[in-house]
Amino acid sequence: MREGHLLYAQSGGVTAVINATAAAVIDTCRRRRVRVFAARIGILGALREELIDLAREDRAALAALRHTPGGAFGSCRFKLKSPEVDRAHYERLLAVFAAHDIRHFLYNGGNDSADTSLKIAEFARARGYPLHVIGVPKTVDNDLPITDACPGFGSVAKYTALSILEASYDVASMCESSTKVFVMEVMGRHAGWIAAAAGLAAGGPDDPPHLILFPEIPFDEAAFLARVKATVARVGYCAVVVSEGLRNADGRFLAEAGSVDAFGHTQLGGVGPVVAQLVKSRLGYKFHWAVPDYLQRSARHLASRVDAEQAWAVGRAAVEYALAGHDAVMPVIRRVSNRPFRWTIEPAPLKRIANVEKKLPRSFIRADGFGITAAARRYLEPLIRGEDTPPYDRASGLPKYARLKLALAKKQLAAYSIADK
Amino acid sequence: MREGHLLYAQSGGVTAVINATAAAVIDTCRRRRVRVFAARIGILGALREELIDLAREDRAALAALRHTPGGAFGSCRFKLKSPEVDRAHYERLLAVFAAHDIRHFLYNGGNDSADTSLKIAEFARARGYPLHVIGVPKTVDNDLPITDACPGFGSVAKYTALSILEASYDVASMCESSTKVFVMEVMGRHAGWIAAAAGLAAGGPDDPPHLILFPEIPFDEAAFLARVKATVARVGYCAVVVSEGLRNADGRFLAEAGSVDAFGHTQLGGVGPVVAQLVKSRLGYKFHWAVPDYLQRSARHLASRVDAEQAWAVGRAAVEYALAGHDAVMPVIRRVSNRPFRWTIEPAPLKRIANVEKKLPRSFIRADGFGITAAARRYLEPLIRGEDTPPYDRASGLPKYARLKLALAKKQLAAYSIADK
Repeated sequence: MREGHLLYAQSGGVTAVINATAAAVIDTCRRRRVRVFAARIGILGALREELIDLAREDRAALAALRHTPGGAFGSCRFKLKSPEVDRAHYERLLAVFAAHDIRHFLYNGGNDSADTSLKIAEFARARGYPLHVIGVPKTVDNDLPITDACPGFGSVAKYTALSILEASYDVASMCESSTKVFVMEVMGRHAGWIAAAAGLAAGGPDDPPHLILFPEIPFDEAAFLARVKATVARVGYCAVVVSEGLRNADGRFLAEAGSVDAFGHTQLGGVGPVVAQLVKSRLGYKFHWAVPDYLQRSARHLASRVDAEQAWAVGRAAVEYALAGHDAVMPVIRRVSNRPFRWTIEPAPLKRIANVEKKLPRSFIRADGFGITAAARRYLEPLIRGEDTPPYDRASGLPKYARLKLALAKKQLAAYSIADK
Repeated sequence: MREGHLLYAQSGGVTAVINATAAAVIDTCRRRRVRVFAARIGILGALREELIDLAREDRAALAALRHTPGGAFGSCRFKLKSPEVDRAHYERLLAVFAAHDIRHFLYNGGNDSADTSLKIAEFARARGYPLHVIGVPKTVDNDLPITDACPGFGSVAKYTALSILEASYDVASMCESSTKVFVMEVMGRHAGWIAAAAGLAAGGPDDPPHLILFPEIPFDEAAFLARVKATVARVGYCAVVVSEGLRNADGRFLAEAGSVDAFGHTQLGGVGPVVAQLVKSRLGYKFHWAVPDYLQRSARHLASRVDAEQAWAVGRAAVEYALAGHDAVMPVIRRVSNRPFRWTIEPAPLKRIANVEKKLPRSFIRADGFGITAAARRYLEPLIRGEDTPPYDRASGLPKYARLKLALAKKQLAAYSIADK
């Protein structure tokens, strides 16, 4: 075994393939003879000295991690403030790292986590603690800069495109006497990447989804309703995909706008039912709506192979970078070519990533605002290619997802209360 | 070619595998040298003399039907009343059949369609028109009597069990600092078959889904909330599956109960958001909810192999029965054994099927009303076994679903207006 152990932690909303990254980290550590721990529930576990001892897990369970959804070690949304404000937290982290000889810290998350990783790296350097901090990309929102895509996005993109495709086959068969408008709500509060991915289902101009409502395009009710009406007249039905982040012209989320009635009562439901109800009340069409919610980001059974491969690749690269002495970097995906689709992994400084959001380019949204362009398709399509089906259990008919013991390493330090600091 | 052609029609809500039945009908007709037509939009097409000429379809497209969701020829919810009331419709049907030498009529649907099939068979017999009418089972609701299961149900069952399993992995990873209660609404307004299938995800007592709300069990708010609270305390989170048909003790649908507030305003959303909001307002937990709606019954990518095989088998048997001179029967599935799981197809008289609903037995619901029993698992589990993954297109990353020409045979009769009768 090498000296200096490695600690891996998951952060923020999980994805269908974040555990593939975890599995790659563990596998690479094993090959490189580095002892590896995982923080229980992200950075919270690091602060509490709750380090999962991966040496106690079965090899088979760790291998099954690669195809298991969710975040196997627990994740959290906990953002460290600057060392000036949260000094005790930073001191504690270094104390925990020192107590367990952690010399490599891999933090698997999005923009916030990149910021946290950077701050930890700078604090350790200032203190002279020998630490290699590597941010590892992950987010279904696909909003990290520099990297061509974020592991997790390709799988939710594939789920979204396929779900609207399949549901539209259903609606199309029944539309003469039943549902004429189908609305599917997708995630992406700040950017329309997932909504855009739905557009991959449409091969031709009258193919579903017929209309996509992006958070980047203020909702134009009249234009939308006119399009719905024309589509139903021409095609027989209309399939709509709406981002949860859709806003009115005045910048308010449509889901919120619809959530309180004139008497101040909170209504239930997201923007999907709001849009569907609008169609019903203005145009009279029979409607259905779907809100897959967590189903879309946990659908490991439908993972994109490219996404799963990229998730693995960033995990492996993160370990290699740490062992090679890199610090405050993130392995990012660089697209080398579209035809054939080729990509490589390279390090990028966390400074250029922390707190920077990659927006959906306007050039990816059709001029009319209701669909995607050929440029968007060129970018998106390779990301949902290939399947990475998990092994299924014959008796239960369900995938064999991993169950870990999650046994903690013996604590060396006094208890630490996060709330008190 | 034999004399006497065959007409196949799809009826009611479609399923992920109804086209597998259609493909089996077409394939068997080809092997038996019988010319086969499909009615456009179910019985409506038969009345309008809109008969899709399947001889004009490409062989490859017809083969791809087997793994294509939706109802390829269109479906409708149109119930023929008795010949005393709707006499003109019956006369018209026989006129269309005679004009196109239709001697075999296969109607693929649920209880209502079995009733329609029976009435057509009786009318034809009374008129001396030589016709073999075969009802072909299909419904995600699984509520046809006699048959062990209804083709379409196994696939929605597999989708439901896997979806709540995957989403629960997601919730479990985040529950300390994020969502504590996740509610997924499933179809089944009159019977809890689909809700029960969600229970297949749970291997142990504290596995998700922790609570299932069945339409058969009046909603006991206090007992439910106490269970949610105890589950969150014990497990860290609580995954709930609720049937759209959940009712209050007074028999009202909970979705409706929640849909109008004290001022008479209609609220949006189904029972899923109603239950989630209840948990939030009474217990204060952060929640998410999902309503997969049509996604659950169109998810061909996740079809159960057993379901797809049974869908094919009833289609093939239906043709064989018609050619063998059976009339007013339905090919039903008989379970021969559970271990190993074996089944056969046999004919059952439509008289015993029409308008009869098979309820979820009380013995399938746990005594406390919130889960399934071992008996339910023994029945349900074989139905979701095996995968029947459609072929995927390498470039698009999506399944290659069939697109048919749907060219109509030349009409022989004057136009017929259904609304006028």
